[in-house]
Amino acid sequence: MKTLIENITVIFEDGTYKENIYVAYEDKVFTYIGDTAPEGQYDRKINGQGKIMIPGLYNCHTHTPMTHFRGMAEDLPLDRWLNEAIFPAEDKLCDESAAIGALLSCAEMISGGVVSMSDMYFFCPALAEAIGTTGIKANLSRSVVSFDENSDVTKDERVYEGVYLFENYNNSFDGRIKVDMSVHAEYSNTAHTCEYVASLAKKYNCGVQLHLSETEKEHNEGKARRGMTPTEFFEKTGMFDSRTTAAHCVWLEDKDIEIFAKHGVSAAHNPISNLKLGSGVMPLEKLVKAGVNVVLGTDGAASNNRLNVINEMNMTALLHRGVTGKADFPPVSSIVPMATINGAVSQGRVDCGRIKEGFRADFALIDTTFVHNIPSFSPVNTLIYTVYPTDVTMTVCDGVTLYENGEFKTIDVEKLSGDMKRFKF
Amino acid sequence: MKTLIENITVIFEDGTYKENIYVAYEDKVFTYIGDTAPEGQYDRKINGQGKIMIPGLYNCHTHTPMTHFRGMAEDLPLDRWLNEAIFPAEDKLCDESAAIGALLSCAEMISGGVVSMSDMYFFCPALAEAIGTTGIKANLSRSVVSFDENSDVTKDERVYEGVYLFENYNNSFDGRIKVDMSVHAEYSNTAHTCEYVASLAKKYNCGVQLHLSETEKEHNEGKARRGMTPTEFFEKTGMFDSRTTAAHCVWLEDKDIEIFAKHGVSAAHNPISNLKLGSGVMPLEKLVKAGVNVVLGTDGAASNNRLNVINEMNMTALLHRGVTGKADFPPVSSIVPMATINGAVSQGRVDCGRIKEGFRADFALIDTTFVHNIPSFSPVNTLIYTVYPTDVTMTVCDGVTLYENGEFKTIDVEKLSGDMKRFKF
Repeated sequence: MKTLIENITVIFEDGTYKENIYVAYEDKVFTYIGDTAPEGQYDRKINGQGKIMIPGLYNCHTHTPMTHFRGMAEDLPLDRWLNEAIFPAEDKLCDESAAIGALLSCAEMISGGVVSMSDMYFFCPALAEAIGTTGIKANLSRSVVSFDENSDVTKDERVYEGVYLFENYNNSFDGRIKVDMSVHAEYSNTAHTCEYVASLAKKYNCGVQLHLSETEKEHNEGKARRGMTPTEFFEKTGMFDSRTTAAHCVWLEDKDIEIFAKHGVSAAHNPISNLKLGSGVMPLEKLVKAGVNVVLGTDGAASNNRLNVINEMNMTALLHRGVTGKADFPPVSSIVPMATINGAVSQGRVDCGRIKEGFRADFALIDTTFVHNIPSFSPVNTLIYTVYPTDVTMTVCDGVTLYENGEFKTIDVEKLSGDMKRFKF
Repeated sequence: MKTLIENITVIFEDGTYKENIYVAYEDKVFTYIGDTAPEGQYDRKINGQGKIMIPGLYNCHTHTPMTHFRGMAEDLPLDRWLNEAIFPAEDKLCDESAAIGALLSCAEMISGGVVSMSDMYFFCPALAEAIGTTGIKANLSRSVVSFDENSDVTKDERVYEGVYLFENYNNSFDGRIKVDMSVHAEYSNTAHTCEYVASLAKKYNCGVQLHLSETEKEHNEGKARRGMTPTEFFEKTGMFDSRTTAAHCVWLEDKDIEIFAKHGVSAAHNPISNLKLGSGVMPLEKLVKAGVNVVLGTDGAASNNRLNVINEMNMTALLHRGVTGKADFPPVSSIVPMATINGAVSQGRVDCGRIKEGFRADFALIDTTFVHNIPSFSPVNTLIYTVYPTDVTMTVCDGVTLYENGEFKTIDVEKLSGDMKRFKF
């Protein structure tokens, strides 16, 4: 299958753009990007007039089954939200319901131009089976929680689920599904569990996903408990020796940011979730200045309540201008890599995240002819400030169309909507 | 024309809601709201299944012609943004282009469920003629700027335009167009101009629109210039003796908030614009505690870059949780009045802003069946946190359908899109 998109405005992963471009892809990869029409026969030609093409978006922190809890427990702070609402609801989940929630998450992400996610949860083999069928990419991880200092971590079933997941699903579904190791957070784990999970990540040469310094309380209590910051704790336990994506990073100290830079830890910025739960605002400017690989995430649907990276891009632009008083930070164009190539880097996907010949044909098309997108002085400004996720008309991953003009190609959303109603929380 | 909406979930202006409601309207007003189907014949019946009905939204601070400048000058702070980009561009506007920009703004607002706006600009008679045809409600005002302490304000053409506007357009277009007096801001006017405009507002018994303490610099420079805060200055000049809507209010001091409460000044919260220009965050909690009538605004399309009140509701929920650290402020349901009835109050529209028998039939229908709105534990949570403006399927103002299922009934948006391209800034 050879496809040619003609006369399209392309926003590249570095935030630059070109107009009237021809983009061709065949099977899984981009085969041509240029100013003139390429030679050859194409099975399908798409008119790009009035549209923007962007690299497929990366949602680098989420919990896919949590769509079940979207809007369930509003107006609560993180600790009460977790203990009074989310944990009891999660206790009612099962393989089937978790997978159905994950599919709904995939549908929402795909319809908003997302081609890959980093997911932390449990019921992971069931999630892998479900998510694998949707055609989206995912770095799945079994989020380990451990409180018993005297337990034998090598026999912990939560740790074992992560190992099982890796051994059975890493690079499955044509490589779209990858498996990372994960500990939930510093405050929810023992040191020896973290050390053991870190050793597994090194053994399997895979990535790590974890929550880090999301709230001030958690950060300060961690320091009191360990005599070091949560970042220092994770460094000490060896977690950062593997490719790590740390979610939230709201309360990082300067020395923590140095550790991030030193180990190449990716910081997953979840601006909407952090606002909604009253957690605060990530020190983005310091992280960027230190050269840290910043990526974007939505967190789960219960604390956002959307799973849409276009929103996170918009919020990243607005929020940091407002809280720093600097109307030029972060530059609009600098937000594009956070949502694209930086995500691919954080997931260890070396041939993804760019609109470039030889790279995976992962992209979204966005209709910019709606009144709210007119006029456009720059497609990048349009993308960051005015496009709604609902303006996405096509999402393609590994050259396969997952969504086009309101139609899901790999997910039966009507059935899914009915399935969601079968479960009460 | 008698219309009945059946089995709809209604969110009322106070943030409460009821499911499976019947709502009828005839000509301009709601005639029935109840749990059971009303008797009588209806010209049209609408199935409300899968939809939410909300009171028509109020955008209480905007500058409609500025859609021409949407995305034009990104990454600049307010003073440079105004002086280097916006003011020179505004100098190129004319009656025709201003009216075309205003129509585009109306289309965007109407498609997002907005039924009324408060607008500050110039070229106002042309705007009144254009906006009047769209069926939307608008409190228009000629924003006066004056720097010459020795000028004769009674002969100022900008002031005269406001008077002309009032005398020719107040209560025009079947009462949908109202006219307020306006001074641009404290920093852009002389005291005697403010006193004179305040006297005109009292003479005409109309409202007042102005910018107030948007940036810290403006607020502090005003204090240094006047020996009082901008709020104290406006109180002293008599501006607050009339029904006033003050936009932004980011840097209000405690004594300013007392003045707002004392005079019944409405505070127009523009959270997105204030973030984008690096101006800061309004002290919403203090204003609410003082009993101030808080309303929502988008500001112009150059500093947002959207004109959509659903976004402002969402941002109001998220932003204050994040910056105060209180995950329960403002309560989700308390944001609904800010976007509806409080707006009607600020505009002096006594029979608008409520879904109630005898009130104007102003409402929007929202489709909640899209994947991003599933599940819904409360329609209010869904409205504030997950609905996109593009989920609006119908906007009705004074009983007239202005927009339905993507179709604009009163605006030729295709022609408008072409017209927009005729003007370069």
